[in-house]
Amino acid sequence: MRRSVIGSAKALSNCSCQNHWNVRLLRPLASSPSRFLSSTSVLDSPPPPPSSMPPVSLDNINPKVLKCEYAVRGEIVTLAQALQEELKSKPGSHPFDEILYCNIGNPQSLGQQPITFFREVLALCDHPSILDRSETQGLFSADAIERAWQILDQIPGRATGAYSHSQGIKGLRDTIAAGIEARDGFPADPNDIFLTDGASPAVHMMMQLLIRSEKDGILCPIPQYPLYSASIALHGGALVPYYLDEATGWGLEVSELKKQLADAKSKGITPRALVVINPGNPTGQVLAEDNQRGIVEFCKQEGLVLLADEVYQENVYVPEKKFHSFKKVARSMGYGAKDISLVSYQSVSKGYYGECGKRGGYMEVTGFGPEIREQIYKVASVNLCSNISGQILASLVMSPPKVGDESYESYSAEKDGILSSLARRAKMCAYTFGISDVQLTLEDAFNNLEGVTCNKAEGAMYLFPCIRLPEKAIKAAEAAKTAPDNFYCRRLLNATGIVFVPGSGFGQLPGTWHFRCTILPQEDKIPAVVSRLTEFHKSFMDEFRD
Amino acid sequence: MRRSVIGSAKALSNCSCQNHWNVRLLRPLASSPSRFLSSTSVLDSPPPPPSSMPPVSLDNINPKVLKCEYAVRGEIVTLAQALQEELKSKPGSHPFDEILYCNIGNPQSLGQQPITFFREVLALCDHPSILDRSETQGLFSADAIERAWQILDQIPGRATGAYSHSQGIKGLRDTIAAGIEARDGFPADPNDIFLTDGASPAVHMMMQLLIRSEKDGILCPIPQYPLYSASIALHGGALVPYYLDEATGWGLEVSELKKQLADAKSKGITPRALVVINPGNPTGQVLAEDNQRGIVEFCKQEGLVLLADEVYQENVYVPEKKFHSFKKVARSMGYGAKDISLVSYQSVSKGYYGECGKRGGYMEVTGFGPEIREQIYKVASVNLCSNISGQILASLVMSPPKVGDESYESYSAEKDGILSSLARRAKMCAYTFGISDVQLTLEDAFNNLEGVTCNKAEGAMYLFPCIRLPEKAIKAAEAAKTAPDNFYCRRLLNATGIVFVPGSGFGQLPGTWHFRCTILPQEDKIPAVVSRLTEFHKSFMDEFRD
Repeated sequence: MRRSVIGSAKALSNCSCQNHWNVRLLRPLASSPSRFLSSTSVLDSPPPPPSSMPPVSLDNINPKVLKCEYAVRGEIVTLAQALQEELKSKPGSHPFDEILYCNIGNPQSLGQQPITFFREVLALCDHPSILDRSETQGLFSADAIERAWQILDQIPGRATGAYSHSQGIKGLRDTIAAGIEARDGFPADPNDIFLTDGASPAVHMMMQLLIRSEKDGILCPIPQYPLYSASIALHGGALVPYYLDEATGWGLEVSELKKQLADAKSKGITPRALVVINPGNPTGQVLAEDNQRGIVEFCKQEGLVLLADEVYQENVYVPEKKFHSFKKVARSMGYGAKDISLVSYQSVSKGYYGECGKRGGYMEVTGFGPEIREQIYKVASVNLCSNISGQILASLVMSPPKVGDESYESYSAEKDGILSSLARRAKMCAYTFGISDVQLTLEDAFNNLEGVTCNKAEGAMYLFPCIRLPEKAIKAAEAAKTAPDNFYCRRLLNATGIVFVPGSGFGQLPGTWHFRCTILPQEDKIPAVVSRLTEFHKSFMDEFRD
Repeated sequence: MRRSVIGSAKALSNCSCQNHWNVRLLRPLASSPSRFLSSTSVLDSPPPPPSSMPPVSLDNINPKVLKCEYAVRGEIVTLAQALQEELKSKPGSHPFDEILYCNIGNPQSLGQQPITFFREVLALCDHPSILDRSETQGLFSADAIERAWQILDQIPGRATGAYSHSQGIKGLRDTIAAGIEARDGFPADPNDIFLTDGASPAVHMMMQLLIRSEKDGILCPIPQYPLYSASIALHGGALVPYYLDEATGWGLEVSELKKQLADAKSKGITPRALVVINPGNPTGQVLAEDNQRGIVEFCKQEGLVLLADEVYQENVYVPEKKFHSFKKVARSMGYGAKDISLVSYQSVSKGYYGECGKRGGYMEVTGFGPEIREQIYKVASVNLCSNISGQILASLVMSPPKVGDESYESYSAEKDGILSSLARRAKMCAYTFGISDVQLTLEDAFNNLEGVTCNKAEGAMYLFPCIRLPEKAIKAAEAAKTAPDNFYCRRLLNATGIVFVPGSGFGQLPGTWHFRCTILPQEDKIPAVVSRLTEFHKSFMDEFRD
């Protein structure tokens, strides 16, 4: 596949072409004050006659909101929800009996069980008055009870229903910092940690801080997780794309970063930050340490903040790769906080825990002056604090049971079971999409899909296969006024109940088409998914083959 | 006290005078690209020498962030946290042995206990695998177990760790809608409800939707809860102030709304929405129904979205006043969704439950077209969903135990105990600040504070007394480069450990000074607080009396 650079950052964020992610055409803004408001003084004249038109319309809302797109819960998912309602009210109304959500990394919605120890501690912290009761000993493990006491003792007044410090409970930040130190081998400061309701608000916070206008650019991988494009759009900045190289397993080349940076600057964009997602979403690659060093060096030299999305740090499935935090890489290069501004995002939603609904997460913020930290704290304080259960859970995932603890064995068994199953599923799914170096272990083998190629999922929870769509299908999509990958995903959903996200939502090289699917369906369900998909794909290609 | 109108909305949001809330002086923005970035192509020339300056400074962050202020966790609170650390590391280093946080409505931080039934249900939903165990019957009430089952059955796969629908779990929204119907006597639609992490993100969402530029105005009460000024600043809009009338118990006059609206329009501002906080924060008044009808009529005629902050709906302490939701008032006037755009905010943080740390809340959004609802949904979906425990708790506060349920009696006793204690505390505190029509029940009566007057707290959790500061104190504040009310609060904190928030943070008529204090210290602590405050105030006045 040949790489070609498609337009400038500005073009990317303003154009309405369907080749990258969907950018909604902006309606013209009324240049005069709202037509629903009288322009004469309300004191001097009678009020205008009540209008039957609502005061808020697409013509007069914030254009940044209109521009924002979030495909992971976009049109296809809305259609899936409608189909699900129909299946409920009219069973048998579709050629499938359930919707299979492969659109989003939401493991527990597909049957993954939570880690028992974590849930024990959460339940005890929610209802501490049972901690002293004898029945509790029989219901909960001893180390969960002990951990709940430890956590409660870190909370002023043991009040889990109180607002905490706006960065999160200090004792929990101590635990998280210790977990980071143990992971990286370099010091971590609890005052650098901001606990948030999942990682998303933390991403918004930094975008809000850095973006002043549409002239401020954020370098983002293409394909990217659309939180980034959505957040940049909402904050009115310019997304400066850099392309991951599909041919080399979604490689991240510093030469590409340099090229796109220069291009953006030549167009008057001030680059402020670089987003790196490692392991990759939607692309699943795990960066090599040497590659990370190059990225750190680039950010340092160019004065860019490095925004490191490290929420999949526990999701690495290949023995030859290992997760290294960017902070560890920077520190091991001898770069301290004074040398590079670095933000690392972590979440309780991913890893082997998959606790999406708990909305726990944090960012570790290093390399900013105290006056900037104060500004971040101020913005955090406007929402007072993140939810305490999510805070507690964030401390637990960074400090799980240790050898010798009562829960250690069952905890390890649960964790290993989930991670090894995820690794198997990554392989099974990848095989379906035409990976050549993977042996499928399923007995009922099936054919690879015509025209589909896919890179290995080294980590994270997704595959992002490339699909070569026939011209006829592309024309049919045009006639249906939608992007070809969207057309494919919609047909797939209507035929099988399987929910994939079109590549347009993540960005892709023009003329190429992809979709993202999670590897999260339970193993015993995968054969059925694969056969439904295979059957659909065959009939789709039969219909549209050139 | 004479009312005088202080400047335009624009002046209010841009000027640096200390008379209203503190607006930080904006540093000039660099007009050229960041000095840390090379302007030559990085492909053609060697990278610039690494700079020892960080790439992010106060000179180059988003000026909207700089402008935003949130006094409730501002300078005074930061000082309080530092003092608390000092007390811990050096006991006896200050003339008090604890910090008393009266800055924020955070009841459980001051000893209020959570409602048992709510916490039972939360714990069971966190760890559902104990639901079937026999020990659980002994530890939890039967109706809590039953409710947990009901809730789990409303969650697909009973997965409390999964992302939910971005508006919140449908079954919980059904419960909340039923609770609203029972409260108001008018229908409520679960599809109108957006569950959020506390009410704050819901406020931001609407500001983000409505504000296009600094020419879009949001009418806000002065004094106001600073979430509103902060959110308007962060989204780059204009705060259009309307003044509550302290002389009539913080009355909200429609004539004042009209006057400020006309004034804003004459300055080229397009008013988009009206914020009303009822019961009032920081002012504690409860609006009369007739007053609410006038406000609804005004919004309808002017095409303004009515943003109704109704988070204190359970906190009404005087028998002659009752809470009426704006939706109920509008519907009882015969106005349906087509007639008025209305957003009602509710939170689990307030009421008798006070579950601030759980970050549960919702907004009910009526009177917007489906295309606008779609935009709100899209913005909500970027953050995926609010935390599930907070969602569950929001359903519980809108559907608590009923007569006949096992927990009903203990639940009622807990609820009544908290609410009647809050009512007593509102009286006790108000007396301290010079209210004439309240009899203090404490035996050790004390003198009212010189120069301090205060309105009754009919509802909410705060008093907002007016303090006439001597000229000498005002001069001393000037010399210390701070606002006089801030000067007073800082001295108070340093002398007594009591944390009040200066009125500047909420807005006040120029030349008047106030502070906000919560009524939340436990009853047995109040006499000590009062005597520390009284002693401080006396010595302050002795020092500065003209």
